[in-house]
Amino acid sequence: MEAELKDMTDDLESLKRSLPDSSLHASVDKLKLHVENLAKMVKSATVQRSKVKDMSAEVVDSNPYSRLMALQRMGIVENYERIREFSVAIVGIGGVGSVAAEMLTRCGIGRLLLYDYDKVELANMNRLFFRPEQVGMTKTDAAVQTLSDINPDVVLESFTLNITTVQGFETFMASLKNKSFCPSKEGSGVDLVLSCVDNYEARMAVNQACNELTQTWMESGVSEDAVSGHIQLLIPGETACFACAPPLVVASGVDERTLKREGVCAASLPTTMGVVAGLLVQNTLKYLLKFGQVSPYLGYNSLKDYFPTMAMKPNPQCSNAACLERQKEYLVAKPARDAAAKAKREAEASLAPEGPLHDDNEWNISVVDDSDLGRIDATSAGALPEGLTHELPSADEFEKSPAPVPADTSVDDLEALQKQLEALNAD
Amino acid sequence: MEAELKDMTDDLESLKRSLPDSSLHASVDKLKLHVENLAKMVKSATVQRSKVKDMSAEVVDSNPYSRLMALQRMGIVENYERIREFSVAIVGIGGVGSVAAEMLTRCGIGRLLLYDYDKVELANMNRLFFRPEQVGMTKTDAAVQTLSDINPDVVLESFTLNITTVQGFETFMASLKNKSFCPSKEGSGVDLVLSCVDNYEARMAVNQACNELTQTWMESGVSEDAVSGHIQLLIPGETACFACAPPLVVASGVDERTLKREGVCAASLPTTMGVVAGLLVQNTLKYLLKFGQVSPYLGYNSLKDYFPTMAMKPNPQCSNAACLERQKEYLVAKPARDAAAKAKREAEASLAPEGPLHDDNEWNISVVDDSDLGRIDATSAGALPEGLTHELPSADEFEKSPAPVPADTSVDDLEALQKQLEALNAD
Repeated sequence: MEAELKDMTDDLESLKRSLPDSSLHASVDKLKLHVENLAKMVKSATVQRSKVKDMSAEVVDSNPYSRLMALQRMGIVENYERIREFSVAIVGIGGVGSVAAEMLTRCGIGRLLLYDYDKVELANMNRLFFRPEQVGMTKTDAAVQTLSDINPDVVLESFTLNITTVQGFETFMASLKNKSFCPSKEGSGVDLVLSCVDNYEARMAVNQACNELTQTWMESGVSEDAVSGHIQLLIPGETACFACAPPLVVASGVDERTLKREGVCAASLPTTMGVVAGLLVQNTLKYLLKFGQVSPYLGYNSLKDYFPTMAMKPNPQCSNAACLERQKEYLVAKPARDAAAKAKREAEASLAPEGPLHDDNEWNISVVDDSDLGRIDATSAGALPEGLTHELPSADEFEKSPAPVPADTSVDDLEALQKQLEALNAD
Repeated sequence: MEAELKDMTDDLESLKRSLPDSSLHASVDKLKLHVENLAKMVKSATVQRSKVKDMSAEVVDSNPYSRLMALQRMGIVENYERIREFSVAIVGIGGVGSVAAEMLTRCGIGRLLLYDYDKVELANMNRLFFRPEQVGMTKTDAAVQTLSDINPDVVLESFTLNITTVQGFETFMASLKNKSFCPSKEGSGVDLVLSCVDNYEARMAVNQACNELTQTWMESGVSEDAVSGHIQLLIPGETACFACAPPLVVASGVDERTLKREGVCAASLPTTMGVVAGLLVQNTLKYLLKFGQVSPYLGYNSLKDYFPTMAMKPNPQCSNAACLERQKEYLVAKPARDAAAKAKREAEASLAPEGPLHDDNEWNISVVDDSDLGRIDATSAGALPEGLTHELPSADEFEKSPAPVPADTSVDDLEALQKQLEALNAD
């Protein structure tokens, strides 16, 4: 719009010069005034925040990162600014993916890769993020528009494609391998892939790509009746992959297509999807910035406000060849991993002071054996500055609750579940 | 902007007529083309969705309510459209309140009352909802701007005031009593008050107003270290009020003011606040539309993904006089309440068919005694259409977990907690 206004000013100038009679100059000046007014209106409608070179912890109203950098002062995160080095890929920019993208953008993530092939519709307005004026735009374009306004510091790359097509999958793989953002990074070009898709086929495509690339990812889903959801961490070779064991999400009996027939549509709620997106990005922040415990699986049953957790080991008879390869590599690397962990423990022990660091141990911090696979522990963040405490009591005593499903599920059960899962369509 | 463009077109027309030489007409026509282009740009930037008279369940891309009305077809909600009759007041339009307002707006709530006295700052951009171009606006004005674009069907009333001042409290009370939206409504003019404030004083003001009006409300909070939060249901006379028992949110030892001194600010995260807003509005929907179980208290410890629940009875020695009055009324009304409940049960039993409704009982539905105070049961929503199941297994077996805090807390403990709570400042 600014270009159009500039052209108009130029054209008015040349018109004024061509006028034979200066009595008409006033009319042209009046027109120029209109253009100036329009320019002012356009400018006030598009005030944007400028880019920020370094994240500052300064507590001023104009610092968009002050409340995030405060996580360091509060002892939760060791180095918050590291978030600018990370790349996260989000597959599916729907009710969960779009909110996850906005949360990471507001947290100042380094780079976001967004994948979707769908367009924004009025029927999406019962979920957060998209606005009615974006109806008709591709979800990727609309997301880039909104996210770049919110935080211009984030590098956004969007891919309007379907990852379940041959061409789409190839582009998806190539984009994950691209290391131009951080050439020194080990492995792929991204630190984490978040799956926020609404169907089984797309989840299997993400699973295939991540198994091939030894890429850690997190899966998310919301049930068709809109009242439950889950997130799950998948580390190729170390945890179950999506083909090893389907999640506890089953639409039993009916085929996915029957649910999409004319006149039938799945329910969705901004609440359930907002909670799942929040839990997903919280797990992402804990994983990337190494604080708290990264949950291997977390369910959300909103009717009862019940949140089951569990851990799933890989299935040695998984149907996915890349998964079996990753499992082999993980086993082969075990002695080296154990030795490194032992050396690290010994080094830390030799550095530790002789006596207890805090005699009174007000926060009840203790060194615990964190080898339990059920919980993936990152660095402890229990130590808060004097005078602050976590809002809730310790969950330790509740962790002994029985898991809803045993970690080792038999293959027969898996096949039955797999069939049911084919009927799954979670959005 | 449209008016400015219209004036320009008129002025160009009159200029064209005044031109002595038709050789200059082309220049004017070029200018007119510019104006047309600008008009097109302005139009595409302000496409808004029109109001919808009735909520339709029709499954078309252009229906903003299709995914919500599907909750009826899925057996979750008996009558979704009733949501248009409800009024919800949200006090505090910050990181939790703004997201709660957006969720309720997208769900098509009838009427929202918004209270805040603060302005939008760049330092708020690490939470969802507000956009950088709204910096400097009051939070109420910015919220009304965004929410009315998202859903013009919602009646929005905003109050730019501080409810902890004498004048602000009076206006707050008067606005809650105003019944013009639904004159036949019993009690106050609103169905629920959501407290999304960040300090103790404002919570006590909401508590006072709700106790005086016998107004059910829900409280929410996020810890200063940004990694935990909670929601709580308060029914005057029936549950603990905010003065009966402070929540499990304590900043021990230090005074609130020391945490706000120069150079020090509390941390916040869009994830934690998004989750708390989602849980709060989910509980609101369950309460208003009568499905699932309304949680009396739900905590969120994000470091461990741990979600404690509990119930708190009113304190017979509460310092709040209005609370004591409500407690008396509740006790006096007990025999009538019990008799009505018994009559309802008997009427339902006489209407029920002789044999079992479903012989196989695939969904394991059973009639249970729901008199337990620890859970406030609404209508059962367990019955899903054939072929659908909830994403997660039943939580029944986990409900026997020990509550983190006994329902009857002694008054000595309360006084100690009360003192600590005065140091609370949760945002």
